[in-house]
Amino acid sequence: MKKESDEFHVTPWEISGRIDYNKLMKEFGVSPLDEKTLRRIEKHTKELHFMLKRKIIFAHRDLDWLLDEYEKGNKFFLYTGCGPSGPVHLGHLQMWLFTKWLQDKFNAELWFQFTDDEKFLFKDKSYEEIQKWTYENMLDVIALGFDPKKTHFLIDTKHANLLYPLAIKIAKKINFSTLKSAFGFTNETNIGQIFYTSMQASPAVLPSAIKGKNIPCLIPLGVDQDPHFRVARDVYPKLGYYKPAIMHKMMFPSLGGAGAMSSSKGNIITSIDSPKEVEMKIKKYAFSGGADTSEQHRKKGGNPDVDISFQYLKMFFEPDDTKLKKIEEDYKNGKLLTGELKEYLIKKINSFLAEHQRRRERAKKEVDKFIYKEK
Amino acid sequence: MKKESDEFHVTPWEISGRIDYNKLMKEFGVSPLDEKTLRRIEKHTKELHFMLKRKIIFAHRDLDWLLDEYEKGNKFFLYTGCGPSGPVHLGHLQMWLFTKWLQDKFNAELWFQFTDDEKFLFKDKSYEEIQKWTYENMLDVIALGFDPKKTHFLIDTKHANLLYPLAIKIAKKINFSTLKSAFGFTNETNIGQIFYTSMQASPAVLPSAIKGKNIPCLIPLGVDQDPHFRVARDVYPKLGYYKPAIMHKMMFPSLGGAGAMSSSKGNIITSIDSPKEVEMKIKKYAFSGGADTSEQHRKKGGNPDVDISFQYLKMFFEPDDTKLKKIEEDYKNGKLLTGELKEYLIKKINSFLAEHQRRRERAKKEVDKFIYKEK
Repeated sequence: MKKESDEFHVTPWEISGRIDYNKLMKEFGVSPLDEKTLRRIEKHTKELHFMLKRKIIFAHRDLDWLLDEYEKGNKFFLYTGCGPSGPVHLGHLQMWLFTKWLQDKFNAELWFQFTDDEKFLFKDKSYEEIQKWTYENMLDVIALGFDPKKTHFLIDTKHANLLYPLAIKIAKKINFSTLKSAFGFTNETNIGQIFYTSMQASPAVLPSAIKGKNIPCLIPLGVDQDPHFRVARDVYPKLGYYKPAIMHKMMFPSLGGAGAMSSSKGNIITSIDSPKEVEMKIKKYAFSGGADTSEQHRKKGGNPDVDISFQYLKMFFEPDDTKLKKIEEDYKNGKLLTGELKEYLIKKINSFLAEHQRRRERAKKEVDKFIYKEK
Repeated sequence: MKKESDEFHVTPWEISGRIDYNKLMKEFGVSPLDEKTLRRIEKHTKELHFMLKRKIIFAHRDLDWLLDEYEKGNKFFLYTGCGPSGPVHLGHLQMWLFTKWLQDKFNAELWFQFTDDEKFLFKDKSYEEIQKWTYENMLDVIALGFDPKKTHFLIDTKHANLLYPLAIKIAKKINFSTLKSAFGFTNETNIGQIFYTSMQASPAVLPSAIKGKNIPCLIPLGVDQDPHFRVARDVYPKLGYYKPAIMHKMMFPSLGGAGAMSSSKGNIITSIDSPKEVEMKIKKYAFSGGADTSEQHRKKGGNPDVDISFQYLKMFFEPDDTKLKKIEEDYKNGKLLTGELKEYLIKKINSFLAEHQRRRERAKKEVDKFIYKEK
């Protein structure tokens, strides 16, 4: 294999280079999700989600504290979100499926933030386009089967009455220097972008603010979102709130293999792709770890670690450990060709999306039930 | 007279030195309010407010454009505000009395913003204390007799659903560099302060956004507030809105004479002071332009230009030009002693405040009528 540059960079708005997750954990100051903590989770959930077993959820902050509180009867709520700037892609769905598992297993309230302000401020898109995507993305979240009684959508511009008063309390304790070093902001950064972190930080304490008592919070997130909370976690205790616990998911790889699947980079598989589109994209773009010809592949085998089709199965579409193991071995020893692996993945994705798209249609009647209303 | 330093500095949060208003107009790029424009105003108002005749309202932006529009039948609305961090003082009341005159003469809608977010972000005060002052300051505004049918209170944290979506549109077009040079912000400035200008800029176009058509806006303000709009005026046209016209009021001087009356500096006369407090403050603190002894004063006379009691009469409490002229002459030629001038002012202030405080009590029942409600 070619030696790749060690350089990588992870912020909520830019991921470049091949991420070294061990280095990243040190850089961000987060803990690896170790066996001991996994066993503690399993004690309550009876089984472990495959993303936990496979260390796709690979790191955390304060999860042991959260479980301590849980075991004392101090239940937590979940908070995650979505930046609505285009169609939802597989990386989003993956994160939210895990979040739904947490909701189900811990019977937890979920606050789900749609950061329309963020996407408007950071993208070269109109306010109206972002609003359209906010609605479209809500359908995807609903389609995943979250419990409407326990799931509360917050849309930053629509729930600003709730979020802005909290955001300014957080903002008062963060200066520009801190954001410069966390995000690489410059003097040319717009003042909405500068403020935005305090809006994303707010839902982690909103339920506590509403109820007037401290409630533990668990944030499952893609690791690129961690810097917001790295900054905000210093602030929460100053306002009398708990620091939220965090579970970090690896970035879902782009079809091309390097970097993360990202709406702004194209070549993504979205929740609204047709079976034909999925087939074309996987066949045409999914980076292969196979040998150059079938003959060579039969002889030397392929490398599943860099094969995007295999990675998509491992990270999302093949929850069955036995089946995954067999695929991995067959691919390694050349029994399974890249084309066959791709066909398997295409069927898996299209079967998932067919059901998702049916539920997504039904979700159009349910949006209002999910949007949080002030009592 | 002692030669004073030429250095002065005017921002919304810090006024230092003795303001040279001619220099300030050049620095800010605003126009002096000349006779020609005053005559145009008078054509519509039939008479000129004493603050206009005396050039206490001394400068403007785009007032001729506003009058052009008005004369074409394109009516304007008024927008002004209050930063609620303590009791209202004479400088606030003076600004709002002039605003009420504009409302009456032009039969104009008034949008009145209470910038509770600003005061929380810029002052070392709790959120709760700022909320208390927001309520208290609303009573003062109502007490001045604004028309409840035409006056709409906006409280930044309570109306964030309306203001934040506009604010991010403005914020997207302002970078940190611009605010550094407008306000002297540094890397240590908190990120709420950095964002805040876009919240103050929003009400100038909110009625246009609500109605879905461009409505001219006139902002009467203390000149220290101009920098917010100097920055925002470049942005409004990019969003398809008119630039607002502005009328600038001189700062109401502090009792000590130098700088502006400011809640953060103490020695202010507030709307809730008792007659005894007013008497004490004027007698003890109001800077005198009189001679050192009564005998000297009788001989050499006093200097009304630096005498705070005379300035308060000129700027607020003696609207009658003939009476003011006589007081000025009597003081200059030594006929009127500082003590007598102060007694006259004390009576004027206490008579104003007695009525104001009565109306302020009544206002407690009217607050709800003034707070803007979304249709």
